[in-house]
Amino acid sequence: MNNPKISTKPPSGMRDFLPDELARRHHVIEVIRRIYGSHGFVPLETPTIENLSTLLGKYGEEGDQLLYRVLRRRDDLGRALDEVHQLMSGDTPAADMRAQLQAPLADEGLRYDLTVPLARVVAQYELPKYFKRYQIQPVWRADRPGKGRFREFYQCDVDITGTQSLIAEAEVCAAVTEVLHALGFTDFKIRLNHRQLLRSMMHTAGIDLEHESMALTAVDKLDKIGQGGVRDELAGRGISSEAANKLMEMILFAQVDSIFPGITSKALSPGPKTQLATARHQLEDPAGQAAITELEQLVDLLGATAAGPHVSLSLDLARGLGYYTGAIFEITVPSLAGSLGGGGRYDNLVGMFGKKQVPAVGFSLGLERILVVMEERGMFPALIGGPEVLLCWMGVPMTAVLGVARQLRAQGLRVEVFPEEAKLGKQLQYADAPGVKAPLAAILGETELAAGEVTLKHLGSGEQARVAVAAAGPAARGLLKG
Amino acid sequence: MNNPKISTKPPSGMRDFLPDELARRHHVIEVIRRIYGSHGFVPLETPTIENLSTLLGKYGEEGDQLLYRVLRRRDDLGRALDEVHQLMSGDTPAADMRAQLQAPLADEGLRYDLTVPLARVVAQYELPKYFKRYQIQPVWRADRPGKGRFREFYQCDVDITGTQSLIAEAEVCAAVTEVLHALGFTDFKIRLNHRQLLRSMMHTAGIDLEHESMALTAVDKLDKIGQGGVRDELAGRGISSEAANKLMEMILFAQVDSIFPGITSKALSPGPKTQLATARHQLEDPAGQAAITELEQLVDLLGATAAGPHVSLSLDLARGLGYYTGAIFEITVPSLAGSLGGGGRYDNLVGMFGKKQVPAVGFSLGLERILVVMEERGMFPALIGGPEVLLCWMGVPMTAVLGVARQLRAQGLRVEVFPEEAKLGKQLQYADAPGVKAPLAAILGETELAAGEVTLKHLGSGEQARVAVAAAGPAARGLLKG
Repeated sequence: MNNPKISTKPPSGMRDFLPDELARRHHVIEVIRRIYGSHGFVPLETPTIENLSTLLGKYGEEGDQLLYRVLRRRDDLGRALDEVHQLMSGDTPAADMRAQLQAPLADEGLRYDLTVPLARVVAQYELPKYFKRYQIQPVWRADRPGKGRFREFYQCDVDITGTQSLIAEAEVCAAVTEVLHALGFTDFKIRLNHRQLLRSMMHTAGIDLEHESMALTAVDKLDKIGQGGVRDELAGRGISSEAANKLMEMILFAQVDSIFPGITSKALSPGPKTQLATARHQLEDPAGQAAITELEQLVDLLGATAAGPHVSLSLDLARGLGYYTGAIFEITVPSLAGSLGGGGRYDNLVGMFGKKQVPAVGFSLGLERILVVMEERGMFPALIGGPEVLLCWMGVPMTAVLGVARQLRAQGLRVEVFPEEAKLGKQLQYADAPGVKAPLAAILGETELAAGEVTLKHLGSGEQARVAVAAAGPAARGLLKG
Repeated sequence: MNNPKISTKPPSGMRDFLPDELARRHHVIEVIRRIYGSHGFVPLETPTIENLSTLLGKYGEEGDQLLYRVLRRRDDLGRALDEVHQLMSGDTPAADMRAQLQAPLADEGLRYDLTVPLARVVAQYELPKYFKRYQIQPVWRADRPGKGRFREFYQCDVDITGTQSLIAEAEVCAAVTEVLHALGFTDFKIRLNHRQLLRSMMHTAGIDLEHESMALTAVDKLDKIGQGGVRDELAGRGISSEAANKLMEMILFAQVDSIFPGITSKALSPGPKTQLATARHQLEDPAGQAAITELEQLVDLLGATAAGPHVSLSLDLARGLGYYTGAIFEITVPSLAGSLGGGGRYDNLVGMFGKKQVPAVGFSLGLERILVVMEERGMFPALIGGPEVLLCWMGVPMTAVLGVARQLRAQGLRVEVFPEEAKLGKQLQYADAPGVKAPLAAILGETELAAGEVTLKHLGSGEQARVAVAAAGPAARGLLKG
């Protein structure tokens, strides 16, 4: 009992996954891997630690701040201190010093998403021209933890690089739709927008280029802060109320759902093609018209996939990340604030590594979001990952116990051995303990051992039978079924 | 092309896993999960980031230095700078300042192994009395990278907590043995020793307590630096040559393999029971005798499991980590310097968190080591993870292409769609490109579309057949088999 003060909780925003929860996580991951694989995607994994030069400048200013930085042993600390010495010998104000110190303190950081590492991989290796990869790994963001918001969480991404064909957009949307169908989701919406369309709407509203990224961020919050909130935020950043009003009008005009949030009936809601036709009338510039044409083609393609019935145009969808260049998507379900996932086209990200330009499009599902909704709705099948049989024993040598365990396992059973000498009642009680819940006990006493048998007992029904050890596998399967 | 200087390689000691390599990694992980599960172990995952207070002081001084530390955004940097201000206003020498700065610079670090997080979990939660968990996750060590030595690598652990029964030792050894058998390994050795036996040998040799941990570290290097090297290292740390000689004599006495490293024949090699009897004669103190009795019992138990034929006593086995208290194990294969994995009993680690004492024993397999040997020996089965069918098309609408892809996938095929308009020859060539290697093409032209059919073509044999889209699944399976 060396140190009574060490906390045994995981750090803030981090989680331990105990076996029952992990069984549910693995179930979802297996479905995702299977469906992504069936759509021709192949797996990729990238390291937890990336060079900061890979990560910085890709996620916007807020993203840069949320990056975890890592220090390697004393070397880094030494370098950091040398840097501090130099800084402190001058008369740099504290705030500037911090900014300057940021880079030298660490030159590596933790993976922040799976898209930037993919772009690095595509720039680095000789890969198939159309690289269709899926990647299911955790990412880390030093955000304030909150309910349902963690600092370590899993993303499940599909991306296609190397083509500007809209088939790529359609395929990633189809793959995530099939995943959600396979998990039992029916009521999700795929919200669709286009970065160029947003840009054109801002241009038409009279918002100049320098305010564009800020205005995007404000519009992206429409769900959270409402129309008034967005207008206030736009005004607060120096956009005229006239321009702000015009932008909001254009965004909301095609959005029946936004005006009457209660309306979900298909009969009342205009289809995405009608919405796009409405949006086209409001725009003047050719780039915006081209974006609408592209979205119309994409809606047609999606109609041939499982995604079709879920698609709706959402002119207020902006997606925070800086790197999108074309169509953008987001998946929402009625019971969840925020989204189950999102994505879009990013044709310039690979080029940022300075080797080659490679167009790309992708979709990322958030594992934790999916799990939260599935748990709330009771969507999980029965998942048994623990032992099927607890081997209980008394009055026999431990070598005999281990020998029988080996034979049972060789017949395909998942077997736990009670590790200590104890009364049978105590052992049977343990089989049913929380976190164990073995449905069967196999009892090995002197009589059984002498006969080369075990007594199988179903702990729920009490049914039991003596069987030869060599035939215990099929007998146990019978008891488990019946 | 913003920044032509960004490196696209992963950081030093880190790796990208491209699809083919990942298929092999997943194969091994799946086998490990299945076998660990069949032995009644349930999965656990712990966070990548742990509090430094959890990690420090558990792995020895060298371990503490190899821990990656992480910084959360500006907060940490600010705190670190405040600390630097305070330190620099005094007259602390630079070296001391570094030591003092270490803690405040970061209060979190990356997972260094899977055992300490398990101990924390066992201290924190209400778990089954005998918690049998497996855990397969990466760990990070800021070591100098080298051939086959990485800074991020996977461990595959099984542990049993809550019992001092030797059944626990036997079960973890049995589980890893069955894993290696399932992967196709036959020629591995499970080296066995006992921390108390090592301690007693040192005591008998006249090495005092304060030198014990250093002497352990030196003995642990016997494989690498030889007898002379160990003797030199012992002498260099102030141990008399008489004591060093006596210790080496005891260690080597029972080790035919160490004296004649060429001898692997079972006929010539003494069994572990003979080795233990020899070792018993050299020892005086009761603690050492008790350790030998325990090892004799364990060897008997292991004889009832798959591990039996692989076990040998290795009195030079020390295992670097500080937390072991009883039996220790290591698995070696002839072709690999170093080990495939190791483990042992650690009855005091959970207690270091100050809540309760819980005995424990575990075994850790190194995924990378296993993969290296399997690759060298060509032990992998054929693993096909990529698409089975490339859907090639010309002269038909893209909506029709996506519709056919959907139907093929619904029949269980893994289907990639060629994303752009191109000549058929180019599309078929792509199907066979490195990294794609789809064994089949499904060709959709105007004629096929009009008839509701596709032409299936086996790219290896050239065999082809026109089939109804709705029947393409079984037809493709037939071509893949035949």
